[in-house]
Amino acid sequence: MKPIDYQVILEEIHQSIQRQAFAGEVASYIPELAKVNPQKIGIHICDLQGGHYAVGDSNEAFSVQSIVKVLLLVFAITKVDYAEEVIWTRVHVEPSGTPFNSLVQLEYEQGIPRNPFINAGALVVSDIIVRSCQDAKTEFLHFVQSLCSNTRVHYNEAVAQSEKATGFRNRALINLMKSFGNIHNPVDKVLDFYFQACSLMMTCRELAQTFLFLANQGHTYPEQQVIVTKSQSKRINAVMQTCGFYDEAGEFSFRVGLPGKSGVGGGIVAVHPGQYSVAVWSPPLNKKGNSAKGMRALELLTTKTGLSIF
Amino acid sequence: MKPIDYQVILEEIHQSIQRQAFAGEVASYIPELAKVNPQKIGIHICDLQGGHYAVGDSNEAFSVQSIVKVLLLVFAITKVDYAEEVIWTRVHVEPSGTPFNSLVQLEYEQGIPRNPFINAGALVVSDIIVRSCQDAKTEFLHFVQSLCSNTRVHYNEAVAQSEKATGFRNRALINLMKSFGNIHNPVDKVLDFYFQACSLMMTCRELAQTFLFLANQGHTYPEQQVIVTKSQSKRINAVMQTCGFYDEAGEFSFRVGLPGKSGVGGGIVAVHPGQYSVAVWSPPLNKKGNSAKGMRALELLTTKTGLSIF
Amino acid sequence: MKPIDYQVILEEIHQSIQRQAFAGEVASYIPELAKVNPQKIGIHICDLQGGHYAVGDSNEAFSVQSIVKVLLLVFAITKVDYAEEVIWTRVHVEPSGTPFNSLVQLEYEQGIPRNPFINAGALVVSDIIVRSCQDAKTEFLHFVQSLCSNTRVHYNEAVAQSEKATGFRNRALINLMKSFGNIHNPVDKVLDFYFQACSLMMTCRELAQTFLFLANQGHTYPEQQVIVTKSQSKRINAVMQTCGFYDEAGEFSFRVGLPGKSGVGGGIVAVHPGQYSVAVWSPPLNKKGNSAKGMRALELLTTKTGLSIF
Amino acid sequence: MKPIDYQVILEEIHQSIQRQAFAGEVASYIPELAKVNPQKIGIHICDLQGGHYAVGDSNEAFSVQSIVKVLLLVFAITKVDYAEEVIWTRVHVEPSGTPFNSLVQLEYEQGIPRNPFINAGALVVSDIIVRSCQDAKTEFLHFVQSLCSNTRVHYNEAVAQSEKATGFRNRALINLMKSFGNIHNPVDKVLDFYFQACSLMMTCRELAQTFLFLANQGHTYPEQQVIVTKSQSKRINAVMQTCGFYDEAGEFSFRVGLPGKSGVGGGIVAVHPGQYSVAVWSPPLNKKGNSAKGMRALELLTTKTGLSIF
Repeated sequence: MKPIDYQVILEEIHQSIQRQAFAGEVASYIPELAKVNPQKIGIHICDLQGGHYAVGDSNEAFSVQSIVKVLLLVFAITKVDYAEEVIWTRVHVEPSGTPFNSLVQLEYEQGIPRNPFINAGALVVSDIIVRSCQDAKTEFLHFVQSLCSNTRVHYNEAVAQSEKATGFRNRALINLMKSFGNIHNPVDKVLDFYFQACSLMMTCRELAQTFLFLANQGHTYPEQQVIVTKSQSKRINAVMQTCGFYDEAGEFSFRVGLPGKSGVGGGIVAVHPGQYSVAVWSPPLNKKGNSAKGMRALELLTTKTGLSIF
Repeated sequence: MKPIDYQVILEEIHQSIQRQAFAGEVASYIPELAKVNPQKIGIHICDLQGGHYAVGDSNEAFSVQSIVKVLLLVFAITKVDYAEEVIWTRVHVEPSGTPFNSLVQLEYEQGIPRNPFINAGALVVSDIIVRSCQDAKTEFLHFVQSLCSNTRVHYNEAVAQSEKATGFRNRALINLMKSFGNIHNPVDKVLDFYFQACSLMMTCRELAQTFLFLANQGHTYPEQQVIVTKSQSKRINAVMQTCGFYDEAGEFSFRVGLPGKSGVGGGIVAVHPGQYSVAVWSPPLNKKGNSAKGMRALELLTTKTGLSIF
Repeated sequence: MKPIDYQVILEEIHQSIQRQAFAGEVASYIPELAKVNPQKIGIHICDLQGGHYAVGDSNEAFSVQSIVKVLLLVFAITKVDYAEEVIWTRVHVEPSGTPFNSLVQLEYEQGIPRNPFINAGALVVSDIIVRSCQDAKTEFLHFVQSLCSNTRVHYNEAVAQSEKATGFRNRALINLMKSFGNIHNPVDKVLDFYFQACSLMMTCRELAQTFLFLANQGHTYPEQQVIVTKSQSKRINAVMQTCGFYDEAGEFSFRVGLPGKSGVGGGIVAVHPGQYSVAVWSPPLNKKGNSAKGMRALELLTTKTGLSIF
Repeated sequence: MKPIDYQVILEEIHQSIQRQAFAGEVASYIPELAKVNPQKIGIHICDLQGGHYAVGDSNEAFSVQSIVKVLLLVFAITKVDYAEEVIWTRVHVEPSGTPFNSLVQLEYEQGIPRNPFINAGALVVSDIIVRSCQDAKTEFLHFVQSLCSNTRVHYNEAVAQSEKATGFRNRALINLMKSFGNIHNPVDKVLDFYFQACSLMMTCRELAQTFLFLANQGHTYPEQQVIVTKSQSKRINAVMQTCGFYDEAGEFSFRVGLPGKSGVGGGIVAVHPGQYSVAVWSPPLNKKGNSAKGMRALELLTTKTGLSIF
């Protein structure tokens, strides 16, 4: 079988996407995000033969937002003793079937979030991290920097402050969980860390590089440093597959066929285990809060390569 | 890499499962199903090198129940012109996050079922089939028989009658959808076909053989007859992955890491694209309505082989 | 204090209401009801001094629809031994906070309807009646005829048939309750009686006369025949107060301040205990399914008389 | 008709209630409330002939908790220009059909609380008060003191602090409403006032005296000072009738037949318009959070007097 020429495919996708009518709107509930140029598009692929393929604005940093939820989970697993035992009693692994910030299920289900990739779940994971770190913000930043071998990765204070000033629904979520006993630290301490983490600025290249270990059974590539075990890597990918896109997880699975995670900054990361990781960025979001062009780009990628996990 | 010896692994699993304490209860809401011997266990694997591996009661027929929902979807796609255009406007592909027969979401979402693998969704697919067949029961039976090259596959009239006499919740679901205009035939005609289809009796061997085309990009093996396209095969697997286990889809994905579908008869079918299909049968169900030992067996299978889609 | 001149007040209300812009739409989900002239308005008051006061189309019969739910409850109480013990274990007395035909609460609350004045509750009451009657339709009709001393009161077969042909949501409700064991007769038998009862044709005069016993501590006026006890009368009024207007019960209580019951035929009956009963009819319904002008007329009545139960 | 001897009836009720088996549990979610003696029982009636009737611990002050929600609404109406126009666009008057602190409906209904007597609604009313007062705590206290002509009425700082330290669910509610734009002041400022108001300590006698104006068409008795208009008084009573007891409003209406309001301190106030006001206190709560003996006492009161609004 002839090897796939990812660069040619990315360029086809780039052209195809750019031609399409502008779809969706840039997230505006965080004022800082509303300032981003909606025309930006970048894609970057890292494969397990050492290849890097990129198009467009793939070296421009953007706010990763919810994509960080995967990295928070990974950090908690690596950082906390008995992390998995602790985590999976306080967060489930089921798709929510509801928007990312819904309180309804959380109330019916006694303060146990459906999965670690909705806001409530990421707040519980943040609560676990905060308890086990002296300086959670700094330690977490170093962890991400080491994953992508790049110390330019940084927090965006303006975005973090913007969320602190307006994040009333996240305050509602965390207080509701606190009332059920599922938050152990003061809510302000957890929120402070969580908003900071969501403000992380990364490029498509950095994101693809960071997530490559999930395509490589939990080991960084090419260093082969063990971040998580093969079994943990499988589980993280499985949760991304069923829970990575809020109430559009099924649609992404159906159209793209890869585990992935989106953020309201317009980024999406996806992983083809054994093959590659990919990051896309295009700010305008569809009605479900996922990058409209980003989803289309990844659908084209698995269609054109003829490869998905299914 | 040494080839995997599936037979050895299956025997290890069989021993391990048998030693475990009896878990769960046999489905009793359909009186006929309550008569089954809860000690039965069977597993059968078909791989894409022509291998067949089996343990236990793998040649004993049981009631496939909800597993048939996948076959109904495939039959509709193959049978109805423009099937996919029709189907995906009347059924979504999102996980439901609720039990298999819940009416709540259906009411909130105006009679459009979350996916084709919950009861409501399978009833819409049945409605589409009934409309396009002269004799839906016979045509569907022949379709399944041809998929597994076995004309002994048959309906169980006692089970079908048992469901007709007690299936009040399915009547509630279909009438609710009818009130929203999403059922086009008389409800009794659709229910009659649906209950019949659910009563299908198949062995683990037959089920594994039947589903092998979904491991083979939509082509039967070894005949390489095209049942669905590669892209359709990917999509069907994707929906199984996110929606095949009601509100335990995430848990199955997390623990097993394969697309699959369960039935209240105690059967589970799973598919490893490019590798194999597998069917397990053990009647006692866990609280979410999935075979307790079946889920454990498949978790052991992907753990022992070290292979999953993730 | 000068006695209230109800006739003058009714004429003021009639003029005021007629001048108002046309509001709402005639119920169309039952095709027969859609044929009614939306301009019709009638009001009739019976007081406990023997007075009768009326304006407009108060002697024209219309489809009482859900108003019959109160009469079904009363009939069950009078007809069935230990009726109240039976009824209140199978139906609650809480406001539903949801539309009249919602399935959501019914599923969460295990098939026990919130109150006897939503469809689900009236179906359970009908189930109780059907069980205890040889010929429920005839017996119930005679009961209503005796309450209003008028044998012209009759069922409308066309309306009953119209509902039978289209009442899919009621079929959903009753099958859901049957699945929880809260319907004891065959669903078709109960639905047949229920649809017939809802088709009752009565005039404002007949309705006001029929409900006068609830203003008179359970005794007919002027005959003083005991229909229900004083305590039962209080309870029925209390349930009308909190549950008589679906998810607009609070609004009716707030604006009008009397216990009452509405129907999608455009009728509303209300009772001022110790004073009078009143029936209004105007077909166009507001968004919550209650007669728009009927609610306004009753608000004017309690405002102009300066009398309500509060 | 012989005048009712309320004192004799109260003594009968007192004896009957004391003989009954201990029911329910004292509220423990606010630690300070858990310290109260569960054996306390007091009842006080004020009628509109100047009569005062009392039994038991009717002169002992307790934490009024949610009973204050009625007084907050009245204070807002009297204090704020155009109060009713403002209030009823931001809070509805429908029964909630759910527990007092549920977030589910609030999310579905875009941050508009169902009524002013659930926590969310009282927080919106508090937000309106806070905006229009220099010193809301002091002004509100003086208002209540003037209503009951008693300057001993005071806040309980320990209770207020206890709620501030543990009121995570109220923080969840107010942040959720803030996210929908239905809270205009800083959440901490509103919560601070609300927790203080809930901590009000009053005796049965003071409560009955305070609420007597709602039995007297909005005028204090005997001074006949206008607090609210006759129409406003009717409306406030109507909302108490349908919304005063969380998801047990229908049950209270059914059994007691008077508008009333309960608090988790074990107090209940009820009003018979034109007749009397009554306050009961017994700390143990039933499963719905209302005083178990208090509800029984009031049921006996309307049964023994043979008088209710129905």
